[in-house]
Amino acid sequence: MADLRDFSRLCIHTMTHKPWTLEECIAAYTNAGVPGITVWRHHLAPQGPRESGKMLADSGLNVVSLCRGGFFPSLTKEGRQAAIDDNLRAIDEAAQIGAPLVVLVPGAAPGQPLEASRDQIMEGIRAVAPHAMAAGVKLGIEPLHPMYADDRSAVNTLRQANDMAGQINHPNVGVTVDVYHLWWDPELEGQIARAGKRILSFHVCDWRTPTRDILNDRGVMGEGCIEVRRIRGWVERAGFNGWIEVEVFSTEHWAEDQPAYLERIKQAYLQYV
Amino acid sequence: MADLRDFSRLCIHTMTHKPWTLEECIAAYTNAGVPGITVWRHHLAPQGPRESGKMLADSGLNVVSLCRGGFFPSLTKEGRQAAIDDNLRAIDEAAQIGAPLVVLVPGAAPGQPLEASRDQIMEGIRAVAPHAMAAGVKLGIEPLHPMYADDRSAVNTLRQANDMAGQINHPNVGVTVDVYHLWWDPELEGQIARAGKRILSFHVCDWRTPTRDILNDRGVMGEGCIEVRRIRGWVERAGFNGWIEVEVFSTEHWAEDQPAYLERIKQAYLQYV
Repeated sequence: MADLRDFSRLCIHTMTHKPWTLEECIAAYTNAGVPGITVWRHHLAPQGPRESGKMLADSGLNVVSLCRGGFFPSLTKEGRQAAIDDNLRAIDEAAQIGAPLVVLVPGAAPGQPLEASRDQIMEGIRAVAPHAMAAGVKLGIEPLHPMYADDRSAVNTLRQANDMAGQINHPNVGVTVDVYHLWWDPELEGQIARAGKRILSFHVCDWRTPTRDILNDRGVMGEGCIEVRRIRGWVERAGFNGWIEVEVFSTEHWAEDQPAYLERIKQAYLQYV
Repeated sequence: MADLRDFSRLCIHTMTHKPWTLEECIAAYTNAGVPGITVWRHHLAPQGPRESGKMLADSGLNVVSLCRGGFFPSLTKEGRQAAIDDNLRAIDEAAQIGAPLVVLVPGAAPGQPLEASRDQIMEGIRAVAPHAMAAGVKLGIEPLHPMYADDRSAVNTLRQANDMAGQINHPNVGVTVDVYHLWWDPELEGQIARAGKRILSFHVCDWRTPTRDILNDRGVMGEGCIEVRRIRGWVERAGFNGWIEVEVFSTEHWAEDQPAYLERIKQAYLQYV
């Protein structure tokens, strides 16, 4: 794999800098020469999608995606309808901020079999796909690590996400590949090749040893054991040459000086991605 | 699935009652009418395998397995040889305490690709299998949850363990099925059927939501979202009708009154397994 020589494909998730407001993220990324931003709804909420969209358009940053939709399963019909309604709103918000993609965290409902959750995920995506098409927004099914199978995702391998995208077979529905969730899978290389043009986005970070918290102890690339560069090679051979999105949830890193942390991310991007 | 109507197949891992010594485990399980015990090397160490074997034989308990061998991968040749030597000792210890099985936690070495660790696991098992055969001890390859792929196991699905056992193809090498590690896998039912007579042991506990610690926050059956009874059905259809081993690592439960906790495990066994 050739090194990345510049930052032209670098995108950062606003949740990587959770302590910052959207305005602070925009200013910092612009100053640092980071051209791409993925916006979390958490960062949209204070000023709303319309004002956020104006700030982003004025900044000249490329809005890569909106995180996140999904969470379709529920034990009740009302809960499933509420999830669909929320995803329709997320699609509208994406359109308002100029994001071409909504990343879907599939969801899971403890108390029902995983198969039932998977059926509800398929139903939910089918229900919102026409609205996504009308809005010019794509939907990326993101398989999550099996340690989130209880309450965050009944889709835990790229094979499953590929199967789902294939069955839904809608031009606006594809998959999101995140190294943190998928690195351990012996089938990963083959399933990335199979995904091919269905790959809509690519997320990077690292797996720390030990992992001290199941949610918020991700590492910056190079701080852990994931072969990030090798996986980037697989994704590129599958035909994806789009944004490389840095998404790090880390209580430790959120407590650090954020501008210095941003510089370290840029160096890690060149060195390890 | 029919309910379990008595405790004739119940086995408890000594690590489930980590605060107890082996002597205390033996006394408590005997008093409680628990007929099977799986001994951790942690509980053997203080009095050694010979004395432990005598205590266990005198108790009348059935020694189901010794936990644990494995951890074969290492970045150095010396490290890999040390692991093989330690597994030879574990086999001897199993023979000394009358355990017909050593459970193998495969291991992983952060800093090398998972494929390299997998090759080293195969090499290690092949190296110790003849000694296991001579000692009359079987070896169970236990796939561990993907959240342990960094430093505990490069074998994370039953498909992988089945592939390995098939390639090694030794009469003393099979697999161990633990619901905690495997419950999320959409291939589980099929891979259990494929494993068939290679299933050497079956471990149960539950997955808590939220899981507050990656190592020591397992639940007793019924405290989480795993369909334990359904998985028992798959294992039994595959031909396994042996011990059902309760293995719970839990900082919370270790801090409780241990005899009362043992009673709750027995009730959970009848109600949820």
